[in-house]
Amino acid sequence: MFSVTVRDHVMIAHSFKGDVFGPAQRLHGATYVVDVEFKRRTLDADGIVIDIGRAIDALRQVLTELNYRNLDEVPEFAGRNTTTEFLARVIFGRLVAAAKRGDLGPGGALVEQMRVTLHESHVASASYEERTDSAT
Amino acid sequence: MFSVTVRDHVMIAHSFKGDVFGPAQRLHGATYVVDVEFKRRTLDADGIVIDIGRAIDALRQVLTELNYRNLDEVPEFAGRNTTTEFLARVIFGRLVAAAKRGDLGPGGALVEQMRVTLHESHVASASYEERTDSAT
Amino acid sequence: MFSVTVRDHVMIAHSFKGDVFGPAQRLHGATYVVDVEFKRRTLDADGIVIDIGRAIDALRQVLTELNYRNLDEVPEFAGRNTTTEFLARVIFGRLVAAAKRGDLGPGGALVEQMRVTLHESHVASASYEERTDSAT
Amino acid sequence: MFSVTVRDHVMIAHSFKGDVFGPAQRLHGATYVVDVEFKRRTLDADGIVIDIGRAIDALRQVLTELNYRNLDEVPEFAGRNTTTEFLARVIFGRLVAAAKRGDLGPGGALVEQMRVTLHESHVASASYEERTDSAT
Amino acid sequence: MFSVTVRDHVMIAHSFKGDVFGPAQRLHGATYVVDVEFKRRTLDADGIVIDIGRAIDALRQVLTELNYRNLDEVPEFAGRNTTTEFLARVIFGRLVAAAKRGDLGPGGALVEQMRVTLHESHVASASYEERTDSAT
Amino acid sequence: MFSVTVRDHVMIAHSFKGDVFGPAQRLHGATYVVDVEFKRRTLDADGIVIDIGRAIDALRQVLTELNYRNLDEVPEFAGRNTTTEFLARVIFGRLVAAAKRGDLGPGGALVEQMRVTLHESHVASASYEERTDSAT
Repeated sequence: MFSVTVRDHVMIAHSFKGDVFGPAQRLHGATYVVDVEFKRRTLDADGIVIDIGRAIDALRQVLTELNYRNLDEVPEFAGRNTTTEFLARVIFGRLVAAAKRGDLGPGGALVEQMRVTLHESHVASASYEERTDSAT
Repeated sequence: MFSVTVRDHVMIAHSFKGDVFGPAQRLHGATYVVDVEFKRRTLDADGIVIDIGRAIDALRQVLTELNYRNLDEVPEFAGRNTTTEFLARVIFGRLVAAAKRGDLGPGGALVEQMRVTLHESHVASASYEERTDSAT
Repeated sequence: MFSVTVRDHVMIAHSFKGDVFGPAQRLHGATYVVDVEFKRRTLDADGIVIDIGRAIDALRQVLTELNYRNLDEVPEFAGRNTTTEFLARVIFGRLVAAAKRGDLGPGGALVEQMRVTLHESHVASASYEERTDSAT
Repeated sequence: MFSVTVRDHVMIAHSFKGDVFGPAQRLHGATYVVDVEFKRRTLDADGIVIDIGRAIDALRQVLTELNYRNLDEVPEFAGRNTTTEFLARVIFGRLVAAAKRGDLGPGGALVEQMRVTLHESHVASASYEERTDSAT
Repeated sequence: MFSVTVRDHVMIAHSFKGDVFGPAQRLHGATYVVDVEFKRRTLDADGIVIDIGRAIDALRQVLTELNYRNLDEVPEFAGRNTTTEFLARVIFGRLVAAAKRGDLGPGGALVEQMRVTLHESHVASASYEERTDSAT
Repeated sequence: MFSVTVRDHVMIAHSFKGDVFGPAQRLHGATYVVDVEFKRRTLDADGIVIDIGRAIDALRQVLTELNYRNLDEVPEFAGRNTTTEFLARVIFGRLVAAAKRGDLGPGGALVEQMRVTLHESHVASASYEERTDSAT
C-alpha cells in the first residue's frame, strides 16, 4: 500500500459537557496540528498517489471552515462534544466529500483509505482511519 | 477506527546478553519516550475513545514501576534481555491488565487494540501492537 | 553559561482586538507547548542549574492558573491582547516571582536569565527572554 | 505484532514530467528523512525483531546508492518520475533484497512486513508498506 | 527581548566545488525547513512583535524565488557555493530588504535582530543571526 | 554570526548522590540526543563554518568514549554527579580539545563559540554554551 501524508493546523475554542472532562468543561481552546494520510494500492501514470497540491488545498479548505471559531456556536455540532477524536472523523468525512466532488483531482476517487490525526499537544493526539467507501 | 494516543517517558539502566548486542552488552541505559495508542471502533456517549486523564495516569503508573531502575535487578525480567521491543510488550500487557482492573474507566474495557511505541533515540524505536483480548 | 529547559503545555480560548489579527479577532483558542530555559553561569554543589523537579512543578503551577480558561474573561488581562508573545512575558514574570518566593529551591535565586517559548503550532512560536533581575 | 524502526536520510536532485507537478517539473532536489519499520510476529531468542546494527547498515547502504545524485541520470529510473512514493517502494524493494541476501542477519528472513516512509519536509511524507514476500 | 518565529520550506538542487565537500560535489539537492526568528525589545500597541501573517507571506515570497530551482544556474550565486550557512545569510538579507520595503508592515522596521535557521535534515542545520541594521 | 549544528546520541547508565535527586539516586540511565552548534563570525573560502563531515566524526568520537557505559565507574567522573548539564560541559571541553588537535580541520580553530545541548527526554534538556577560548 502506498500513502501520502500532508500536514496543516487549525485553532479553535470549545467546551465539553460531562464530568469526565473535569476543567475542560470550561470554555478553552486548542491548536490541532492535522495530518491526513491518503492510501492507495497503486500509483497513477505520473507515479503519484494523489496530486499533493490539491490535497493540501482541500485540507486547507476544510480547516478554514473551522479555523478561528468557537465550535460551541457551530450549528452542525450542537449537542455534541467536539472532542479531538470526534473532529478527526468530521475532517475525514469532509475530505471524502471533497474527493467525491473531484476537488482532489482524478486520483482522489482512487484513494481507498484515509487516516486523519489531530495532535492537540506534544503529548496527546487522536485519529480516525477508515476506508473511504465507508463514509456516507 | 478511532484512536487516542498519549506520551510519557521512563529512564532505566540495563545490559544485554548475546554477541549481537556488541557494546550494549555493557551496563548502560536509555530514556524511552513512550507512546500508547488506544483503538476503538466507536465513541462513547461523551464523544471519546477513553478518559484521557485516566489513560495518562495509568501509563504513568506503569512507567513509575520501571522508572529510575536497573532492569537487570528486576526479578520479573531475570534471564531476559529487556530490549526496546520486549519492553513495549511488557507495557502493553500491564496496560491491558490496568484496563481489566477498571483503571481506565468504563471505556477501558472497550479498547479493542493498543499500540505501544518506545522511542529510544531520535533514530530508533520499537513497537508492540495487538488486540487487547490477545493478552493473557 | 549553563541552562536547563523543561516543557509543558496549556490550552486556552481568547480573541484579539485590532484589524491586524483578521479572523483571529473571533473567539478561538490555542494549545501552547511551553519551553522554559533557566540559565546560570555555574552549577551548584550537586552539579545542577536548578532542581528540575521543582522547576517542572513551578511551571505546571503557573500554567494551571491559565489552563482551560477563556483569557478574555481574566480580569488581569482586561484591555490587553493575550498574544503568544504577551503570554510568554506573563509566564516569565510569574516564574521569576515563583523563584523569589523560593518555589524553585535555593538554585532558583541564582538563575540569571530565563527564556520562555510558546509554540502555538508546528510553524509558529514566540519567546520572551530576559535577565531575571529585570522583572519588577 | 512487534516492530523496530530506524531512521536515516538522503539528499538528491531530480525533476518531474507532467503538468500535475507544476514548478516541480524544473530540476530541484530534496532531503528525504527515511524511516524503515521492520515488522515480525515474534521475537528471537535474544529478544529482538532484528539486529538493529545490521538494519542501520543495510539502510545506509541502500541510501548511499542514491545519495548526492541527480536521479534524472540514474539509468534504472529512466522514463519514471522519482516521486517520494515511488522512491519509498524502491527502497522497500532493495531492503527486501538485502534481507534475502542475508545482510540483515538471520532475523532478516523472518521480517514479515516492512513500512518505508520518506519525509520530504515538515509537512509532507510518503510511505510504502507491504508484506516482504510480495516483493519480486 | 521578545521574538516571533515562523517556519516554511524550500526544495532546491545544487552542487559544491571543493574537495571538502566529497560526494556533495555532485549535483544533488535538499529540502530546507526554514525558521525565521524576528526579535524586538518591545511589543507594539496590538501586543505583537510583528504582523505574523505578513511575516509568513514575506518568507514565502523569498523562498518562492529559490524554490524548485537548480541554484547552480542562478546568476546571482555564480562562483559561490550555495551552502546551508550561505543560504541562511541570503534569506536574512532578503528579509531585511523586505522589511525596509515595508512588506512586513510597520512592525518590520522595528525588528532589531533576526535569526534564520535552515534545517537540511533531522541531524544538521545552519543559522545566520545578526542585527537588522548590519545588512547593507 | 553563522552557525552549523549537528546531532548524534549516546546511551549511558549512572546514579546521582544528593536528596535533591529523589528516585534518580538509584542506578538508572538515559539516552542523550546531543546537538552541537559551532559558531563563527565569517565563512571560509568554501562558504562553510566548518567541515561538517569532520564535525560529525569528532562528535561521534567524543560520544563513543561515553557510549554504553556506566558513568559511575568512569574514573574521571569519580565524586561528581554526571548530570545532564555537567555532561554538556564535558562534551564541550572535549570538542574544544578536538578542535585544538586539528580534528575539525582548519575551520575548527576559527570556531568562536559552541553550544552543546543534551535532550534527555521530550520534555527536558540541558545546555552549555561558551566561547571556545574559555576552555582550559
